[in-house]
Amino acid sequence: MTPSAAPPPAEPARLADLVVTGCTVLLHDDRERIVFQEDAAVVVRDGVIDSVTPAAAVAALPARERIDARGQVAMPGLINCHTHAPMAALRGLAEDLPTEEWFNDVVWPVESNLTGRDVELGARLACAEMIRGGVTCFADHYFRMDTVAAVVAECGLRAHLGQAFFSSQGARGREESLQFALRHRGGAGGRVTTALAPHAPYTVDDAGLAATAELAHAHDLPVHLHAAENRAQTDASLARHGATPVEVLERTGILGTDVLIAHGTGIVERDLPVLARAGGRTAVATAPRGYLKFAWPTTTPVRALRDLGIPVGLATDGAASNNSLDVWESMALTSLVQKSAEGDPRWLTARQALHHATLQSARALGLEEVVGGIAAGRRADIVLVDLTGPHTQPVHDLAATLVHSARSSDVRTTIVDGRILMRDRELLTLDVPAVVRELGERLPALVDRGHGRRVQRYDT
Amino acid sequence: MTPSAAPPPAEPARLADLVVTGCTVLLHDDRERIVFQEDAAVVVRDGVIDSVTPAAAVAALPARERIDARGQVAMPGLINCHTHAPMAALRGLAEDLPTEEWFNDVVWPVESNLTGRDVELGARLACAEMIRGGVTCFADHYFRMDTVAAVVAECGLRAHLGQAFFSSQGARGREESLQFALRHRGGAGGRVTTALAPHAPYTVDDAGLAATAELAHAHDLPVHLHAAENRAQTDASLARHGATPVEVLERTGILGTDVLIAHGTGIVERDLPVLARAGGRTAVATAPRGYLKFAWPTTTPVRALRDLGIPVGLATDGAASNNSLDVWESMALTSLVQKSAEGDPRWLTARQALHHATLQSARALGLEEVVGGIAAGRRADIVLVDLTGPHTQPVHDLAATLVHSARSSDVRTTIVDGRILMRDRELLTLDVPAVVRELGERLPALVDRGHGRRVQRYDT
Repeated sequence: MTPSAAPPPAEPARLADLVVTGCTVLLHDDRERIVFQEDAAVVVRDGVIDSVTPAAAVAALPARERIDARGQVAMPGLINCHTHAPMAALRGLAEDLPTEEWFNDVVWPVESNLTGRDVELGARLACAEMIRGGVTCFADHYFRMDTVAAVVAECGLRAHLGQAFFSSQGARGREESLQFALRHRGGAGGRVTTALAPHAPYTVDDAGLAATAELAHAHDLPVHLHAAENRAQTDASLARHGATPVEVLERTGILGTDVLIAHGTGIVERDLPVLARAGGRTAVATAPRGYLKFAWPTTTPVRALRDLGIPVGLATDGAASNNSLDVWESMALTSLVQKSAEGDPRWLTARQALHHATLQSARALGLEEVVGGIAAGRRADIVLVDLTGPHTQPVHDLAATLVHSARSSDVRTTIVDGRILMRDRELLTLDVPAVVRELGERLPALVDRGHGRRVQRYDT
Repeated sequence: MTPSAAPPPAEPARLADLVVTGCTVLLHDDRERIVFQEDAAVVVRDGVIDSVTPAAAVAALPARERIDARGQVAMPGLINCHTHAPMAALRGLAEDLPTEEWFNDVVWPVESNLTGRDVELGARLACAEMIRGGVTCFADHYFRMDTVAAVVAECGLRAHLGQAFFSSQGARGREESLQFALRHRGGAGGRVTTALAPHAPYTVDDAGLAATAELAHAHDLPVHLHAAENRAQTDASLARHGATPVEVLERTGILGTDVLIAHGTGIVERDLPVLARAGGRTAVATAPRGYLKFAWPTTTPVRALRDLGIPVGLATDGAASNNSLDVWESMALTSLVQKSAEGDPRWLTARQALHHATLQSARALGLEEVVGGIAAGRRADIVLVDLTGPHTQPVHDLAATLVHSARSSDVRTTIVDGRILMRDRELLTLDVPAVVRELGERLPALVDRGHGRRVQRYDT
């Protein structure tokens, strides 16, 4: 090369699929704390976050689509770490009841009526609610999950799906759960991940759990189940088996897998060393609204789990118990309930709540390399939150504004894998009126309990 | 009159000011339970509810304005029974702190900076938030209340206002509270009612409380104050005075007045007979969000108060502690927290929560003859709630849908005294961007704590 050679022509800026400009971006620093970058832009290509830059740097960048997001915060999409999406159809059906009656007198009798079409409509309704509430990924644990997977493929969400089973189904339930997990792993263009989904230690016996753990290892699958949901379950387990539910998980090998434990409000002191020596990745999903509503005496011991390095993701459980799939509310309630439970107003700060809502929730689903943060290389699961409303002004502390003042209805735009699923509050992939109309016609048959059947019996 | 005489011409239907048609109306039956009338209409004339009828009956009724409210529920406007509206300016300023530090290190130092303009802007912001959240009336207890009264007159809300005072101000504070109450009673065309507003038994001494009680009787004014806010205050009062805060209220004569007690989470067993023999109308306002956030060990004992016939209204407290003025959230949280506190999932049902949000809140402010229900003769304070969203469908139990699934953002229309303050989510009486802009300019001076002053010291 000679000194007189002309510089090479500037490479033309490569076309972006989407540029979001002028927003404040929620980022994680290298110590995994929450930080905010103002007047920023997010560039998306091929479903992936290409870069987070000052807005001015991409003013001239050619893009297929631009969103002017001034006055908005770009956050990682919320993750609902434990729900039963089709149960949106049962929202409000079983109210003001203790857990046993809720299961045995209403939910399990009604679930024996569920058709594939009911599941499909319930899942569509749930996905519409979640997209509108800024949820970009959900972990589902239910029946007829092929149908839920099809709805996920259609509506554009990301999901971690498991086909539930009880020991009362014999080996067939477990086998179907495995086949489901293998069939849909990596489905919907990579948006679907899967898990084995035994219902719980009180409905799947030790042999069934042990067989599940073996399948998990053999097929490199994680496990998602309910365990130690409440203190009564722990007490019943101790009386029957001489072991807590967490100890049952250990002795059956489930704690040697990558396991997501739903609820865990019945995790007790003696469980902590058991969890500490777990052989796989253990995570817990907390859905505090239902615990209050069922009047359970304790909540998920988030501080003790943090001390063990166990991620705690946020969840809503199904809408039949929680009445909503509003993870935004779960975030606020987790902060409020944890402060109250620990008697410590300094604990579970707004920034900690945001950490649970983002990175810890991604980690709980084994997706920490994929989503949970806005950073180059992660999939573009992003929500834009409008803070111009009177209820979110002024902003003295942006983390507090997001956790304690903003509402799910402040989410204006929901993006998954770079695709816009809701823009300016308008759903782009689901037809809610059509779902509501058809579901309404099906409700009388769905909620009929005259037959006296139930899918299972709850006896802690 | 001869048999052949023609019948008198039908009287032309009198012009209505407003007819809301096609909605489901929340009503109270004669036993004060909540009932719902479907496909109904509400007719408003001169700011008063003229009738609630089947929608078909008023299809041809001439009206200045009609609202087609199909798919919506018409409810009595929510009442925020205890707040400090101007503190909306301090939302998010003092986070994750114990009560003492919250008061002494942040809130009271900053309040020493408050100018009339700050109060005006804070109150405007708060009123905008409340109108958007379906609040039609609020009880305010703060400083510079002439300014708040002017904002209420301007924006169209209903309010119950009291000028706060401490003993540290001497007799002047009490006198100004009285003059404020007399000056504004019946203001804003009857939308403003007033109260004497001693801050609390821990900041106003016994002589000041006794003098307040005398003024209340002499001028036929109610009293609105903080008392037994938390258990620590009750313990401190017992240690210092040998009496609980409620016993202090009794011995100083405050319980002989019509008194609204804010919070009362420190009401203990021995207070119950004291409250039972109170000489005036006693009511309590509960604002559960802040109690959780401050990690107070107890909540308002709603069930014990109900057994005494004491109405418990819903509240948010100020946005500096609560982060929002969302009474819709207070309604859900009251139900959830009460179930949890009593260990009883059957207690504080959705219908009970709606009763607290409507009639009991009106009663708490002495407005039970004026608002709190949709019935002929009451002032037309009505909100219309849209239930077509995916998060509120399907409706198996309308009371549960309203309390546990609906959100403040589902309020589409807010009407006070027959005047529409928000229509289809558009605020008609307040300019939020202008308020936010000017408040933003004033914030650095407002939040400055370099001077080391505070308006008062908190020492339970």
